[in-house]
Amino acid sequence: MSIKNAFYAQSGGVTAVINASAAGVIETARRHGDKIGTVYAGRNGIIGALSEDLIDTSLESAADIAALKHTPSGAFGSCRYKLKSVDTHKEQYERLIEVFKAHNIGYFFYNGGGDSADTCYKVAQLSETMGYPIQAIHVPKTVDNDLPITDCCPGFGSVAKYVATSIREAGYDVASMAKTSTKVFILEVMGRHAGWITAACGLAAEAEGEGPHILLFPEIEFDEAAFLAKVKATVEKYDHCVIGVSEGIKNKDGKFLSETGLKDAFGHSQLGGVAPTIAQLIKDKLGYKYHWAVADYLQRAARHIASKTDVEQAYALGKAAVEAALAGKNSVMPAIRRLSDAPYQWDIVDAPLSEVANVEKFMPRDFITADGFHITDACRRYLSPLIEGEDFPPFKHGLPHYVRLQNQSVAKKLPEFKV
Amino acid sequence: MSIKNAFYAQSGGVTAVINASAAGVIETARRHGDKIGTVYAGRNGIIGALSEDLIDTSLESAADIAALKHTPSGAFGSCRYKLKSVDTHKEQYERLIEVFKAHNIGYFFYNGGGDSADTCYKVAQLSETMGYPIQAIHVPKTVDNDLPITDCCPGFGSVAKYVATSIREAGYDVASMAKTSTKVFILEVMGRHAGWITAACGLAAEAEGEGPHILLFPEIEFDEAAFLAKVKATVEKYDHCVIGVSEGIKNKDGKFLSETGLKDAFGHSQLGGVAPTIAQLIKDKLGYKYHWAVADYLQRAARHIASKTDVEQAYALGKAAVEAALAGKNSVMPAIRRLSDAPYQWDIVDAPLSEVANVEKFMPRDFITADGFHITDACRRYLSPLIEGEDFPPFKHGLPHYVRLQNQSVAKKLPEFKV
Repeated sequence: MSIKNAFYAQSGGVTAVINASAAGVIETARRHGDKIGTVYAGRNGIIGALSEDLIDTSLESAADIAALKHTPSGAFGSCRYKLKSVDTHKEQYERLIEVFKAHNIGYFFYNGGGDSADTCYKVAQLSETMGYPIQAIHVPKTVDNDLPITDCCPGFGSVAKYVATSIREAGYDVASMAKTSTKVFILEVMGRHAGWITAACGLAAEAEGEGPHILLFPEIEFDEAAFLAKVKATVEKYDHCVIGVSEGIKNKDGKFLSETGLKDAFGHSQLGGVAPTIAQLIKDKLGYKYHWAVADYLQRAARHIASKTDVEQAYALGKAAVEAALAGKNSVMPAIRRLSDAPYQWDIVDAPLSEVANVEKFMPRDFITADGFHITDACRRYLSPLIEGEDFPPFKHGLPHYVRLQNQSVAKKLPEFKV
Repeated sequence: MSIKNAFYAQSGGVTAVINASAAGVIETARRHGDKIGTVYAGRNGIIGALSEDLIDTSLESAADIAALKHTPSGAFGSCRYKLKSVDTHKEQYERLIEVFKAHNIGYFFYNGGGDSADTCYKVAQLSETMGYPIQAIHVPKTVDNDLPITDCCPGFGSVAKYVATSIREAGYDVASMAKTSTKVFILEVMGRHAGWITAACGLAAEAEGEGPHILLFPEIEFDEAAFLAKVKATVEKYDHCVIGVSEGIKNKDGKFLSETGLKDAFGHSQLGGVAPTIAQLIKDKLGYKYHWAVADYLQRAARHIASKTDVEQAYALGKAAVEAALAGKNSVMPAIRRLSDAPYQWDIVDAPLSEVANVEKFMPRDFITADGFHITDACRRYLSPLIEGEDFPPFKHGLPHYVRLQNQSVAKKLPEFKV
């Protein structure tokens, strides 16, 4: 087996632990210098490959690569860019092969979600479609937890821990204030299509009366009357009401609630913000004083409260991707397989990319209570292990100390290519 | 000195560490059983005193009182309620004295901000105005950090650590995404009148190019043209721009930006949310893709990322309040005095309540850069020690484990009183 170089890139929305996967890939590759030469990272995902904008990770110190394990975001830059079909855009694939050839790249590791799995799958087929020998392995990552086959997705467990922690803390706060002030608190979380993050908020409700009292899932059509009745009953019973809401909830006409109603001074629809919409509805119909928060990027970047389980799985999947490549595999994604809930046990299996690309996994209906407003015990059993354990980053001057790599560019060998 | 009981209550917006002050009061009082009998807590602040709704803290275990040190929110309930003037509402004061007499209360500890200091000051004058011997001590607390005399206010340091951590993490995130997606990220923070929390965001910007790049303070009139020019220049230089904005910024007409422009489906002005307003402005005028977050209660409840310095000071001030009472003092607030920046050293002095009540402390102009968009080194020297040190709470099932007290009511001895 001759020595080939590897290409690694990050794709789609970044997470608190995608860099832990990067560390898993790079550290494992470094331990197999007899088979893998240099790991080149794509600057800004696949765009780095197309534009021959490669980063030489061999110039980074072992300490800095290790520090990726506790650094959120995408250390090499990510992208929202999907390769077109090989039938209509053959020139993109020819360009990839030129770049791979020019830099002796035989391994392709792509770290992303469903759309990225599609890109990785297309690259994996290059041997067949274009005759270039490459092994493409997908490393799963998405806070949305919506990839098929794998029991969970790196990035999700840490968002889950963040939102459950945050809504618990805000719930304690509003409970203190309810007598003379705020009665209703609303936290908007990510997950436009799948309600996994919303469900994770529910983990905070462990004791009778503890918030969140209501969850609004994108899988459940928003029923205004039922919702308002539930808010009213909750406030009457507990004197306050804590609500977790997905950014992606829709009304019965299939319209996003966040797109309805609000106009700016110029008459444009305001984009985003289902929490203020829900808050205004409660104010108008029930008259309760409210507060709302939108966590947005804070939730997926919150490495300071990452799940230890999540960090370990992110690293292990990066490592497994390199081991799969060394074992001669192509067109697979290492996936988490759950062996038991309690004690939580898992291992890693290979999922064929053909079954991963472009498939979304939604919440099973039996993870949501019959009334549609909370999670069931089955859901709790699934979610609990994913937020287990703390893995605090180092702190300096009172703040998390994250690494910035040097990200030195590899000299270009090819003419420019318009992406 | 005969044994008298004590009254303790929490007032105004709660914080991540107000319960640490409660622990300081209760644990210190317990160590002086020869002088202080039972500490009765007011359920929901001063309302608990007026309505004779008292909690017997002596029924709580030592372990649960100690656990208050790591539990956010107000364990006994807080209130937004200000005593009226003794001249116009003498009946309120007569009622307080009836309740104090009925329960042999000789010490009054009130834990709050500026408005609460006013209430405490009025109670402190009861000896003079109504002839009832009471010692009233104010325990400072406010995330807004706007009390006079004290170098800083318990609650602020933890919010400061939270917002600086959060905006750093989100800044890393948006930097990864900027090539093909989000260019601008906006975090809205609390502090309607004083920009201390906004300033704390600035601590995250330690290295060249690191966010936040722009801060919008309530002390500085919002200049749209200058702001947009700064955003544009920042994106052109760093490819992204991270902004921290106070909920209280105003335009040149003195109107809150959060109150201008947005209307709901019924034509009502939308309340709150300056971040989406700023985001929309950037989108309309510069065309950049944006994300925004509103931290709201998450920031002041975030005990999981509390500042160790803040927790220690909150506890120490509760302890000092009891010691001041034992020393025969009345109408004072123990205050933090800074002895040096580095190494950070502080002690506690007494501030007269007459100089504390209803006085707000704003950011000095020389803590804000000349262009109005960031903090100066002087500000950084002031803020840095306040976020130093971590004091993580215990975790259980992957989540912070906070205490809920039993909060058993004391039997009432008096007829009802309408608050």
